[in-house]
Amino acid sequence: MPFFTVDKFCNQTSARVGKVHTAHGIIETPAFMPIGTYAAIKTLSTNEIKKLNYNLILSNTYHLYLRPGIEILEKFNGLHNFMDWDGAILTDSGGYQIYSLSNFRKIDDNGVEFRSHLDGSKHYFTPEKIIDIQCSIGSDIMMALDICPSADAKQGEHENAVKTTTRWAKRCLDHYNNRKPNYGYNQVVSPIIQGGTNKILRRLSAEDLLELDAKIYAIGGLAVGEPKDEMLEVVEFLDSIIPKNKPRYLMGVGTPADIIRCIANGVDMFDCVIPSRNGRNGQLFTKNGKVNIRNAKYKDDLSLIDENNNCVISQKYTKAYLHHLFKIEEILGCRIATQHNLSFYYNLIEDAKEAIQNRSFNNWAKDFLSNYES
Amino acid sequence: MPFFTVDKFCNQTSARVGKVHTAHGIIETPAFMPIGTYAAIKTLSTNEIKKLNYNLILSNTYHLYLRPGIEILEKFNGLHNFMDWDGAILTDSGGYQIYSLSNFRKIDDNGVEFRSHLDGSKHYFTPEKIIDIQCSIGSDIMMALDICPSADAKQGEHENAVKTTTRWAKRCLDHYNNRKPNYGYNQVVSPIIQGGTNKILRRLSAEDLLELDAKIYAIGGLAVGEPKDEMLEVVEFLDSIIPKNKPRYLMGVGTPADIIRCIANGVDMFDCVIPSRNGRNGQLFTKNGKVNIRNAKYKDDLSLIDENNNCVISQKYTKAYLHHLFKIEEILGCRIATQHNLSFYYNLIEDAKEAIQNRSFNNWAKDFLSNYES
Repeated sequence: MPFFTVDKFCNQTSARVGKVHTAHGIIETPAFMPIGTYAAIKTLSTNEIKKLNYNLILSNTYHLYLRPGIEILEKFNGLHNFMDWDGAILTDSGGYQIYSLSNFRKIDDNGVEFRSHLDGSKHYFTPEKIIDIQCSIGSDIMMALDICPSADAKQGEHENAVKTTTRWAKRCLDHYNNRKPNYGYNQVVSPIIQGGTNKILRRLSAEDLLELDAKIYAIGGLAVGEPKDEMLEVVEFLDSIIPKNKPRYLMGVGTPADIIRCIANGVDMFDCVIPSRNGRNGQLFTKNGKVNIRNAKYKDDLSLIDENNNCVISQKYTKAYLHHLFKIEEILGCRIATQHNLSFYYNLIEDAKEAIQNRSFNNWAKDFLSNYES
Repeated sequence: MPFFTVDKFCNQTSARVGKVHTAHGIIETPAFMPIGTYAAIKTLSTNEIKKLNYNLILSNTYHLYLRPGIEILEKFNGLHNFMDWDGAILTDSGGYQIYSLSNFRKIDDNGVEFRSHLDGSKHYFTPEKIIDIQCSIGSDIMMALDICPSADAKQGEHENAVKTTTRWAKRCLDHYNNRKPNYGYNQVVSPIIQGGTNKILRRLSAEDLLELDAKIYAIGGLAVGEPKDEMLEVVEFLDSIIPKNKPRYLMGVGTPADIIRCIANGVDMFDCVIPSRNGRNGQLFTKNGKVNIRNAKYKDDLSLIDENNNCVISQKYTKAYLHHLFKIEEILGCRIATQHNLSFYYNLIEDAKEAIQNRSFNNWAKDFLSNYES
């Protein structure tokens, strides 16, 4: 069985529906991944994630390495057991976190030295070590160690990032191919295409990484502060370079509208904090746009949270009750809003899939985007 | 059907098992009530409360009156609909909160003026108004308005509190009997016995209130800072005064050991923040005593939270994972600990009931108390 199979291509856009075959189940794509940074999807249990129909989540290598630590995860034979999750897991490589969270980092050819954002302790990651850590985590899809400059980095920094990221990706793949997985099932290494918003660099990064013939390719270094149209241009550009038979994972994107636009440009996998973080702040996504449930007008609104969203939670509680829970700062409110938003994201992508299957995706996407604020 | 029926009396103590018949179901006693101060059991959904086998919860009139406000609750035809709970609800009268939360109060014969602890706004509660509010809430068991002095109050203050509380209880009962319930089902008014730790005052309070022939009697003004042995003495003393055919609700008590001791002294109903509040702070109750899950020794403890506790949650997660969730301050940790502790309380009382049924309660209680720190 190949790692990725496409069931149907859209005839007007680059959208496609397919399947990613992991050691912990088949992921239908396009797919959105809820984020479980520290071995937990904030506020929710893994049972609840399952009931929302998700079977792939993302967790963060950098965070897990610091807490609970790799030794603990090994004692549990991996993250799946530790957090009681039998679906698939994708882990990032820590590259982005070293750039965004650590206030000290020093890159050399061999790897990157950084300080923990928690206690300032020094650590050193090499491409090989990052793979070993992810083998201890036991994630089904592992990211190669990358360098992810900020949006305002200079051209030279982006060039170096691309070169180093490519060299490290090769070392990650080689290292994984030369060692055994920890827990008896196969894992997959994904290189990360960098290059900022510069198409020449993006092409260089993609073409060099494609020579490694990895099973999956991630697009990194976007949604880090660049203008949105430039982000979309890079995704569209890479769609013309990455072969159609490779699944593409766009890291850290995005809003509902971003996701639909990027599905149209051939992206298969997404992760983003927006549905969960905004949910915890009282912002609900609905087909009619965003609802700030803290707004006083919902105080005595007896209507359901979202009667158009096919989710037990959305059709169980009223807006007035959820408004009240946020007013009193009750955790249950965060749980309800997070579940609703993750359900909205799941159903949005289900609708997109159905439209691709029905050969109506282009019109469906136009309708959605014209009705929906970005 | 009488409001309260006793199925079995213990032959060595005053413990008994019985049933309280409410408009929202039969409550088997002794019973512990989880606390849903603001129309939510902190961190949990009502589904989860049901799964923990609870069918009676407590909510706070004072808090509900301030948020969401009575008008909202009336729009929902009561608290049950508002919070999606079809079990029974007991509400307190706000007397205790006016004393413990408000930094301004002025009592006259007719009622009590106080300032909201939220915004300083002035409010005035009379016995009649407190019943009207609880009729709007629609609670199955309503508390009469009482005056609850602190443990260090002077004798004169306790005497006045007893006299006023008795007058107000009569007005509460009369008012309810002269009006119709809001939502078509019957509610029950419970007077509150006051008197601090003074037995003469407690006798006076109880005997005067018993003349009202209410369906249920609450014991208030305990667990407010007095020594524990004095609290237990008062409960034992009142057991000899309140007729056996009246259910007794001991307000705000207590630890697992307190509850077992008070069951032995004829108490039927309890509420307390301990299992939920301590749970949110990482303290777990087990048959072998308390576990502070934040303790570093649990970092790599692969054993289940409590394999002796018959609860899905207690037997699903490991101590190491729960320790991790508390270390990263993840809400899921509070949810798990709260559910475990509420399950522990439920099962503890189930064990007590079974022992009463088997005529082995006295020995069972001695065993439990000798093994269990207070």
